[in-house]
Amino acid sequence: MTPEELGQYLEARRLLVDEALDRYLPGTGDNPKEIHEAVRYSVFAGGKRLRPILILAAAEAAGGQAEQALGAAAAIEMIHTYSLIHDDLPAMDDDEFRRGRLTCHKVYGEAMAILAGDALLTQAFILLSAEIPSYPPLRKGGWGDLEGVRGSEARLMVIQEISQAAGSKGMVGGQVVDILHEDREVDLPTLQYLHAHKTGALIRVCLRVGGLLASAASEQMEALTIYGERIGLAFQIVDDILDLEGSLEALGKQAGSDLRKKKATFPALLGIEESRRWANRLASEAKQAVSIFGDRGAALAAIAEFVVTRRG
Amino acid sequence: MTPEELGQYLEARRLLVDEALDRYLPGTGDNPKEIHEAVRYSVFAGGKRLRPILILAAAEAAGGQAEQALGAAAAIEMIHTYSLIHDDLPAMDDDEFRRGRLTCHKVYGEAMAILAGDALLTQAFILLSAEIPSYPPLRKGGWGDLEGVRGSEARLMVIQEISQAAGSKGMVGGQVVDILHEDREVDLPTLQYLHAHKTGALIRVCLRVGGLLASAASEQMEALTIYGERIGLAFQIVDDILDLEGSLEALGKQAGSDLRKKKATFPALLGIEESRRWANRLASEAKQAVSIFGDRGAALAAIAEFVVTRRG
Repeated sequence: MTPEELGQYLEARRLLVDEALDRYLPGTGDNPKEIHEAVRYSVFAGGKRLRPILILAAAEAAGGQAEQALGAAAAIEMIHTYSLIHDDLPAMDDDEFRRGRLTCHKVYGEAMAILAGDALLTQAFILLSAEIPSYPPLRKGGWGDLEGVRGSEARLMVIQEISQAAGSKGMVGGQVVDILHEDREVDLPTLQYLHAHKTGALIRVCLRVGGLLASAASEQMEALTIYGERIGLAFQIVDDILDLEGSLEALGKQAGSDLRKKKATFPALLGIEESRRWANRLASEAKQAVSIFGDRGAALAAIAEFVVTRRG
Repeated sequence: MTPEELGQYLEARRLLVDEALDRYLPGTGDNPKEIHEAVRYSVFAGGKRLRPILILAAAEAAGGQAEQALGAAAAIEMIHTYSLIHDDLPAMDDDEFRRGRLTCHKVYGEAMAILAGDALLTQAFILLSAEIPSYPPLRKGGWGDLEGVRGSEARLMVIQEISQAAGSKGMVGGQVVDILHEDREVDLPTLQYLHAHKTGALIRVCLRVGGLLASAASEQMEALTIYGERIGLAFQIVDDILDLEGSLEALGKQAGSDLRKKKATFPALLGIEESRRWANRLASEAKQAVSIFGDRGAALAAIAEFVVTRRG
């Protein structure tokens, strides 16, 4: 897949995800409209939709259709957005800008931002447990060792995997460790723990959920899981590098904000060059893992390349 | 059921609920331990466990076993506790005491309190989607018009009902309207909307979930739903009255705090006497609704009486 083809692929799927989010979020006409305005302000703030696109790409790699996974994809983006809203709060990272726009609490106030995050997290589970056309029962067979599993059981497994990834031993746990180590020196194992949980857990589960919804076989699930772990960490290392190098225009948030807050980062511990080598090695391992899908894994391979070469 | 019998009933079920919460929450030895300490501090702060007990009582009224509903009961208490932690935050109601103890953010800081709430909400869905011994597949038959529904489908319905009740058109929506009307005059319809959402939605869903898990028939579900709506509102009216009349010792929070913050309350709009009459009428309607269960509904009837006669 050429960079141009990947660009078209990402753009087409970003539109699918945005349409799904618009369909599955309450409208600004729904009461109380203030909360739905705040929710939509943050959800439609121009994200890359990397996580939901990974769900769709994983489903396609495993032989499924992107449409099967759109509900779960929208749900994951809701959870991701809730985590950004809460992380930006004054009591947490205290960020005024996100993706070049004012953060939710700067526009709607702290109380509404806390509630918008709460609403988004809850909406994800409304969506995952709902009967929705784009989230059909699994096709028969497949599912690795789970052959014959019924649609409802599969959906419960998706809810279980996503809630575990988002909870106190996953994403929330990572943010806890991040907060606890602010203004403190951290060593490499702590930094790896932090990223594996704060951002890694949710990225990893995207690949697994895409696989589950496409009835992936066991070895396919294994390959998707490895891919997810590798690019999750690579993504964070590159984020650290970009934060150090970037500018307000390129990143949409104040460059160097991690450094300003003395946040633990890979370049701070390893240097920029070594950090880049590490990210590239992880991307290679991710590509290697999904080579078992052949042509169907081309998008995942191209995304792994994109994650470590992106400039913003 | 005499007041003494009700006291024993509530105490026995409170112990069951506390055991379930202890079993289904991560321990303080689980990493990161700081978040699990904060979560357990708030969950084990001495609540009455009214909501989970209502789930158990509804299941029993409909002919089921309390044990069938313990997982869902623990999950509801987690969601209730998350809402208290977030409501107490400085940006929201800014309360320093809850049930006579310092609030979560006063002990663990604002960041950890926000994350403890997030963790509890997520943990509820981990629990509801997990294979746990106390949350078995439904017994065959029953389920009103849903005869033959499979265990996994029933559990998805429970997740759907609970997430809807907790979300932006339920509990979170009620808190939004409460925040928006702070320091403003409200009329009776707005106050009713506020309470039906902020506290009513979660209480109502307790009765429905208890019924669902016990394979309640359609007319039983209807009776439980009416009961839940009536006592949900009665509970809030009595809370308003107690807040006005109460003392720090009796309530465990600063008495008159609603008045201090000019919160909309029933006694402020209707006077204490008329508010009491209203609460008593609602409790009578609730008891009338569950009379169809005969002796099996005795606990629910006694709880309705308790809700409007309690002194704290």
